[in-house]
Amino acid sequence: MQSEQILNVLYIVAIVAEAMTAALAAGRRSMDWLGVAMLGAITALGGGSVRDVLLGRHPLTWIEHPSYLLVTAGAALATVFIARYMHHLRHLFLFLDAVGLVVFTVIGCNIALALGMPYVIVIASGMISGCVGGVLRDILCTEVPLLFRAELYATVSILAGALYIGGQYAGLPHALAMGIAMLTGLALRLLALRYGWSMPKFVYTEKLH
Amino acid sequence: MQSEQILNVLYIVAIVAEAMTAALAAGRRSMDWLGVAMLGAITALGGGSVRDVLLGRHPLTWIEHPSYLLVTAGAALATVFIARYMHHLRHLFLFLDAVGLVVFTVIGCNIALALGMPYVIVIASGMISGCVGGVLRDILCTEVPLLFRAELYATVSILAGALYIGGQYAGLPHALAMGIAMLTGLALRLLALRYGWSMPKFVYTEKLH
Amino acid sequence: MQSEQILNVLYIVAIVAEAMTAALAAGRRSMDWLGVAMLGAITALGGGSVRDVLLGRHPLTWIEHPSYLLVTAGAALATVFIARYMHHLRHLFLFLDAVGLVVFTVIGCNIALALGMPYVIVIASGMISGCVGGVLRDILCTEVPLLFRAELYATVSILAGALYIGGQYAGLPHALAMGIAMLTGLALRLLALRYGWSMPKFVYTEKLH
Repeated sequence: MQSEQILNVLYIVAIVAEAMTAALAAGRRSMDWLGVAMLGAITALGGGSVRDVLLGRHPLTWIEHPSYLLVTAGAALATVFIARYMHHLRHLFLFLDAVGLVVFTVIGCNIALALGMPYVIVIASGMISGCVGGVLRDILCTEVPLLFRAELYATVSILAGALYIGGQYAGLPHALAMGIAMLTGLALRLLALRYGWSMPKFVYTEKLH
Repeated sequence: MQSEQILNVLYIVAIVAEAMTAALAAGRRSMDWLGVAMLGAITALGGGSVRDVLLGRHPLTWIEHPSYLLVTAGAALATVFIARYMHHLRHLFLFLDAVGLVVFTVIGCNIALALGMPYVIVIASGMISGCVGGVLRDILCTEVPLLFRAELYATVSILAGALYIGGQYAGLPHALAMGIAMLTGLALRLLALRYGWSMPKFVYTEKLH
Repeated sequence: MQSEQILNVLYIVAIVAEAMTAALAAGRRSMDWLGVAMLGAITALGGGSVRDVLLGRHPLTWIEHPSYLLVTAGAALATVFIARYMHHLRHLFLFLDAVGLVVFTVIGCNIALALGMPYVIVIASGMISGCVGGVLRDILCTEVPLLFRAELYATVSILAGALYIGGQYAGLPHALAMGIAMLTGLALRLLALRYGWSMPKFVYTEKLH
């Protein structure tokens, strides 16, 4: 299908972009070149891997397509040499990161739908695909995951998943439901970045123990 | 079986309690509302998920019962609004946390027994079920896991697992072996909390490298 | 095969050595005795476990051989009592750690080869087996994993894996290809330790967001 091909191209663009932004996080922790390559691959491919391990779905994407491992590690490594110019491209990378979020989400939903999972799990599968790579990156950099505190990141993923399922349920053509879900999620994420929207935070200072 | 039904009710109570105490940990890290919900679900359901992934047992509990995902995320979220009253209930929550520890342990043992695993793995399965949720919570909050330093937490889990297996091996009725293991574990955990009992610590200050 | 038996003996030596050095890391975080035992077992057996979970290969090594769990936990615990003498043995332990790295790597490659995986995945499988145990240890101690910053650790693993595959591809006898890969990797690791060789680091200080 044509929409499948577009999704696949967007997936490649997204894993490259995720690997490159992860490389900058590695640089902030002074990792060595191989560490940069590994953190890039883990961030780009980790969300899908955790999803497939939890669903018991084998082989994992990068085991079936080892080139994804080489492409993401290579993109992260290349970032070492072009990092000085990345600042000028920061809007592009924030945009591609947002594209990655909705693309990973829709792919994660598709995989759970193909396995006949209930809707709650389909949305969870989309969110794990979209968000867990960044959580792994933050854990490996020993930072409290941004996901749990950031600008509507997981919210966008849940909303896109719900719209995607809702659109299909309402009888929309598959490609249209997918397009609406992805564009709405993308718009919300970009607006959140632009205007600094975020979820209310829960601040608790007492110790229970 | 009746003892199975009691175990199931206790399991629901325990995952709700674990999700609610995890929500307080999320609040101490100023996570947003969705982060609170996610940390609650991961803490409550993560131990069983890691156990099942290691045992190669699918589908995972929350994939088979998606309502558990909603219940734990919802309980964590509700905690945001009742946190100010939680301090008065701290003894109740410490008690429910201890109940959760022994309930998760016995369920983990049951699952490994049903797979025909050797006793060492049965006890390990109980301990992973009982303790790993809290380890995931602490990693996601970037704290050295309390498990590795806390009041007999893992010890209680190993002891309860060993008593449970020992009781069955000695020919006790299943429900009696389970009851003895859970009550002994619960008593030890509560006494450890009350009197500050803990394992000796290993303190080492040199660098090997 | 004789080379298989040698590899198996080296594997036992290596998991014991990894568990003992992990115990020292646990001591630097003042973990309790059970925490020491757990961190030892997780460090020694975690790399192979992650590899098998990602490959969808069950049962995991320590579930098939529960004695490995007891041996590594016991070795870590014993370290509590002999830690004061470990400093005199630090060269031995650094040597055994290097042996472990190449032994785990070759075993990881063998497992992926037996599953008919492509070469990129064979090398990745070797590296995951060799390096991930230490990553788990560092995460549980809330340190940025040494792997991403250390003296050619992952590099040695990739090189040994590539030499092993290359040797077999070139038609060398299996044991010879294995011996060359392991001895070259060992030599490189020891030279890196001796002369402080390391990969260039990527240092980046700007925030993309």
